[in-house]
Amino acid sequence: MIWLNGAILAAERARIDPADRGLTLADGLFETLRAYRGKPFRLGDHLKRLVEGAAALGISPPYPTAEIAAAVVELLQANALTAQDAALRITLTRGTGPRGLAPPKGVHPTLLITAVPYHPLPEACSAAIASIRRNEGSPLSRLKSLAYLDNVLAAREVEERGAEEAILLNNAGKVACAARANLFALVGDHLVTPPIGDGVLPGIARRTVLELAQDLGIAAEERSLRPADLAQAREILLTNSLFEIRSVAKLDGRVLVAGEIAARLHGAYREMAASLAVAMTKPESH
Amino acid sequence: MIWLNGAILAAERARIDPADRGLTLADGLFETLRAYRGKPFRLGDHLKRLVEGAAALGISPPYPTAEIAAAVVELLQANALTAQDAALRITLTRGTGPRGLAPPKGVHPTLLITAVPYHPLPEACSAAIASIRRNEGSPLSRLKSLAYLDNVLAAREVEERGAEEAILLNNAGKVACAARANLFALVGDHLVTPPIGDGVLPGIARRTVLELAQDLGIAAEERSLRPADLAQAREILLTNSLFEIRSVAKLDGRVLVAGEIAARLHGAYREMAASLAVAMTKPESH
Repeated sequence: MIWLNGAILAAERARIDPADRGLTLADGLFETLRAYRGKPFRLGDHLKRLVEGAAALGISPPYPTAEIAAAVVELLQANALTAQDAALRITLTRGTGPRGLAPPKGVHPTLLITAVPYHPLPEACSAAIASIRRNEGSPLSRLKSLAYLDNVLAAREVEERGAEEAILLNNAGKVACAARANLFALVGDHLVTPPIGDGVLPGIARRTVLELAQDLGIAAEERSLRPADLAQAREILLTNSLFEIRSVAKLDGRVLVAGEIAARLHGAYREMAASLAVAMTKPESH
Repeated sequence: MIWLNGAILAAERARIDPADRGLTLADGLFETLRAYRGKPFRLGDHLKRLVEGAAALGISPPYPTAEIAAAVVELLQANALTAQDAALRITLTRGTGPRGLAPPKGVHPTLLITAVPYHPLPEACSAAIASIRRNEGSPLSRLKSLAYLDNVLAAREVEERGAEEAILLNNAGKVACAARANLFALVGDHLVTPPIGDGVLPGIARRTVLELAQDLGIAAEERSLRPADLAQAREILLTNSLFEIRSVAKLDGRVLVAGEIAARLHGAYREMAASLAVAMTKPESH
């Protein structure tokens, strides 16, 4: 079952108009997040980012944030995804329009929510630096827009080289992120993640990791990274809202040691997620 | 009426799957071209570019080129667009897939063709250089992919400043193209257009103009352009397969003289298009 423009219906009955600008021009945004036994993690933060991104594109979300949040919970229930973890995706497009780039007036945006079971990935992965560059010269590098094909190609490129995750540099040669995740590197004793201006999506998991690092007394900062920094990094961590934290065990063939900082942060992250799930399943007081 | 995966049907009855990767990840390509009284201009070149782009993305077109060409003509007839000019769009996506970037195996690509009446635009337009940069560091800058949102935003940005067409620089500060077109500048006595490597789509109208320039004895070359070159250019021309050639009469406030080279090239372009249309409507010999 999926949620489309206010209704829950079977996916095979749901229809996207061929003139939807999400399809024809990638004119829209999305969010992916994880629900822990029916409890979406930092849903408020995801919806805030969606609304801010929509404002940047000049799209008015067709439903208030509270209504979208309720739809997410309703969809998890409709798919019997309250006792296991789920991957949620919220997609917002500008809606249908005639030929051409100019956004039509009075268009009704499309809002689509999907929820499927989430199966955890291994803690560690291999990674490689892709040849495709991240476009720091576009605001889209800082928005989770539907124009995601660069990421698809980067992932495909490194998979052909035997790596699981692709790392992208920007056009200035600085490290930006991974195709599916934000990136942190342990450089000396500092956990460093590239600043948003380097062409980085302000990831919710990225922010969560920065907060957890502070809680745990791990020195963390936003600072530009060069490939040479990655070549010397003691640990490299990838973060996203689905797999949380993955430790890079091999980068372009170089083997990294098992990540101690990654393990500490991931432990704290899981504890936070588990406490949310418990809070949700706790019986209400009377 | 539209053509979708082998059938002509009413647009309101056509259904795109919400899991189509064209929608979720901009994972696909498109072509736009003009039909002159039922005769698509350089359709073979457009289909060749589509097939080459699909190969670059690892998508196998679901129909042979000849069948797509026949579908285009059939759709023009179904929409009674044989006595007037039409704007055609051919959209190819990787097809539907589960969550995630990795392209699924055995997926069936989506092919969609639309045809609507084409109404000519004025010969001259105003233009402005957008702040959004073209990503020369991605192969997508040289493919007509569905990841078109940068162009939408660039067009929107300059329209808010009162200009009709947006010119994009790449991250190295070189001129790449316009949001809807390729660009030529008359610098001294040379008609110059940026090379593909600067983040440029190899436009069919661009190539046509390069050929026509040669026929007319106008010195033309592919060479990188800087904004300073545009500030000194005697003429600036925008080319695309729908409006053919538009002369930039005003660039960021600077008024340019009426384009003599633009007029000569546009005359030759129209003659070529008209001869195609005549060839098509000529009664068959018995």
